[in-house]
Amino acid sequence: MRGLWIEDGELQLRDNLPEPGKSPGEVRVRVSTTGICATDLALWRGYMNFKGVPGHEFVGVALEGPLAGKRVVGEINSACGRCATCRAGRPNHCPQRDVLGILGRHGAFAEMLRLPQANLHAVPDGLSNAAAAFAEPAAAALRITEQLGPQTGVRALVLGDGRLGLLCAQALSAGGARVDLAGRHPERGSWLGQGIAHRGLPEDLQAGLSWDLVVEASGDPNLLESALGWVRPCGTLVLKTTAERPATLDFAPLVVNEIRLLGSRCGPFDQALLALSDGRMQVEPMIEARFTLEQAPAAFERAATGGVLKILVDQEDQEESQPR
Amino acid sequence: MRGLWIEDGELQLRDNLPEPGKSPGEVRVRVSTTGICATDLALWRGYMNFKGVPGHEFVGVALEGPLAGKRVVGEINSACGRCATCRAGRPNHCPQRDVLGILGRHGAFAEMLRLPQANLHAVPDGLSNAAAAFAEPAAAALRITEQLGPQTGVRALVLGDGRLGLLCAQALSAGGARVDLAGRHPERGSWLGQGIAHRGLPEDLQAGLSWDLVVEASGDPNLLESALGWVRPCGTLVLKTTAERPATLDFAPLVVNEIRLLGSRCGPFDQALLALSDGRMQVEPMIEARFTLEQAPAAFERAATGGVLKILVDQEDQEESQPR
Repeated sequence: MRGLWIEDGELQLRDNLPEPGKSPGEVRVRVSTTGICATDLALWRGYMNFKGVPGHEFVGVALEGPLAGKRVVGEINSACGRCATCRAGRPNHCPQRDVLGILGRHGAFAEMLRLPQANLHAVPDGLSNAAAAFAEPAAAALRITEQLGPQTGVRALVLGDGRLGLLCAQALSAGGARVDLAGRHPERGSWLGQGIAHRGLPEDLQAGLSWDLVVEASGDPNLLESALGWVRPCGTLVLKTTAERPATLDFAPLVVNEIRLLGSRCGPFDQALLALSDGRMQVEPMIEARFTLEQAPAAFERAATGGVLKILVDQEDQEESQPR
Repeated sequence: MRGLWIEDGELQLRDNLPEPGKSPGEVRVRVSTTGICATDLALWRGYMNFKGVPGHEFVGVALEGPLAGKRVVGEINSACGRCATCRAGRPNHCPQRDVLGILGRHGAFAEMLRLPQANLHAVPDGLSNAAAAFAEPAAAALRITEQLGPQTGVRALVLGDGRLGLLCAQALSAGGARVDLAGRHPERGSWLGQGIAHRGLPEDLQAGLSWDLVVEASGDPNLLESALGWVRPCGTLVLKTTAERPATLDFAPLVVNEIRLLGSRCGPFDQALLALSDGRMQVEPMIEARFTLEQAPAAFERAATGGVLKILVDQEDQEESQPR
C-alpha cells in the first residue's frame, strides 16, 4: 500500500508498504483523511528517533468488527489492559502501550492502519471527514476540563493561537470559562465566538494581570516563566506541549504563590465528537489547505512553515462522498 | 529591647532595638522560644536583601487582647483583608501582606514582637513551649493535606529527612498516607512511628519505583528531575522548598505522564496545634540544641552546619516555668 515513511529524519512516499494484517481484537481501517500535527513535524526532525509511518489524527472506514463499513476515529494509545497502571484506570499511561504513528505502531499517513476495536469511535452522521479528523486534538484540548472539572466562570488565558491553542480556547469556553487568547495571529480571534477574546501578542499583555488558569499551548519554552507570572496565587498552569529541550525556570514563585503546574495530554474522544458535532468547537476555519496522500511530502513542507494552521491529507476521492 | 539584627548579610545581637508600640487590632507578644528555620539562614546569606529582626517560628505570651496572659503562637502572614485576593479567601497570598521576620515586619528573635490579633492561636495546656515553637513549620507540612485532601492509602515519598522533611512525613502519615522517606540520615527514621519507613539515600532508591505523591523537602534543586521520575502517571509532586537559583528541568515527562507539580507554603495552625498535642506529630526528638537569646549568633552558626536538626532560642527562664 501507499504511505509516508520517516527514517533518519527523512520523509518518503512509499508505494510498497505492507498492508496491516488481521489481528484478534483489532480492526483494520481504510484511512480517509489525516491531519498533520506538531508532533508529526517533530518526528520528522528526529524526535524519539522515529522510524515508520507517522499520523495519529485520522478519520477512516472500519473494515471489520461491529463498526464495519462505518466512519470511525480512533484513540491513539493501545494499552495492555492487564498491568497495574491499566487496572488503576490509566490505560493512556500503560508503560507497555504503543501510540499510533508515534511509538510502536504505524500511523495514518497510509492507505490503511490497524487499531484495537476498543479504541474506535463511530463518527456521528453530519460531521464532515475534515472536522472528524480533528477528534484527536479536540479530545486533547478537552482533557484540560476532564482533569480540572467544570470551569464555569473561571478566567482563563490560553498562550498560543496556533492549532492547539485555538482548540484549547474553545474547549475551555465550552467548559464554562471566560477565555483570553494571546498569540501572533489576532485575526484568528474573529471566528472563535462568544466567550473568547484575542488579547494580542503575549509580550503585549498588560503588566500585573493574572488569571485563574493559564494554558501553555504555544510550544515556546521561553514563555514558561511569564506564564507562571500570569497565574494568580493558588491558580493553575497547564502545559499542553512538550518542548524538545529542557527549560530553565525559577521555581520560587511556584512555591511562594502555591501554583499548580499540570501536564495534560490525550483526552476524551466521545466529548470531542459531541463538541465538534454541536458546534461548540469550530474547526473548519482552521483548515489551511488539503493535499492528497501522493502530495503528502509537500503537505509536510507546508505544515512546517511558520504560522500555518491545519493541513489535511486526503485519500483519493474520499472527501467528496462525505456529508458536509 | 534585645534582639537579633540582620543587615548586609551580617548577624548582630543588639540591645537597643525599639520595642513594638501598641497598634489598633494588633497584639504585642513577649517571646518565649523561637526556632531557627532554613529561611532564616537564607535571609542571613542575603536572600531578599533582608534587613531587620528575623524569626517566624515562635511561642510567647500575649500582652493584650482576648488572649492576654496566655501562651500563643502566630500565623506569619498579615493580610490587608480588603483586596481581591483576601476577599477570594487567600489572605496568605495578599499582595500587600507583610510576613513576620521575613518581609516588612520584625520577627521573633527579639524580646517582643507584634502581630494582628487574628493571627494568634492559644497554645493548648500540656503542649511544651519547645513543641509549640514548631507550630509554624508543622502547619506548613500540614498544608499538603489541606491542598490535596485526605491521603488515605496514598503511597508517598518524602525527599529530605531534615527539619521540614520529617514534619512532612509525619503530616502525610497523620493524613492517612503510607510514607517512605529518603535522605542522608536513616537513623532518624527510628522515632517516626508506624506508617513511615526510611528508605536510605535518594540516590539509592531502587530504579523503576514510583509513588502516587512525592514531596520535595530536601531543598536540593538537583533532585527535581529524579523527583519527577518517581511520580507515577497522573500523580503529584509537591515542592515545599524554594531554591535560591533557577533550576533546569526537562518538562516533557511532566506533560507525557500528566504530572501535577504543586507549590506549597503556609498551612493551618489549628490543625498543627492539634497534631502536636495528640502526638500525631512528634517534634521533641528533632530538637538538636537550645540557646539563649544572648547566644543567638552562635545558635545561627550551629544551625548553618550541615545535618543539624532544630535549634531553639529561648528567652531567659521562660522554658522552666512551662509544662512539659
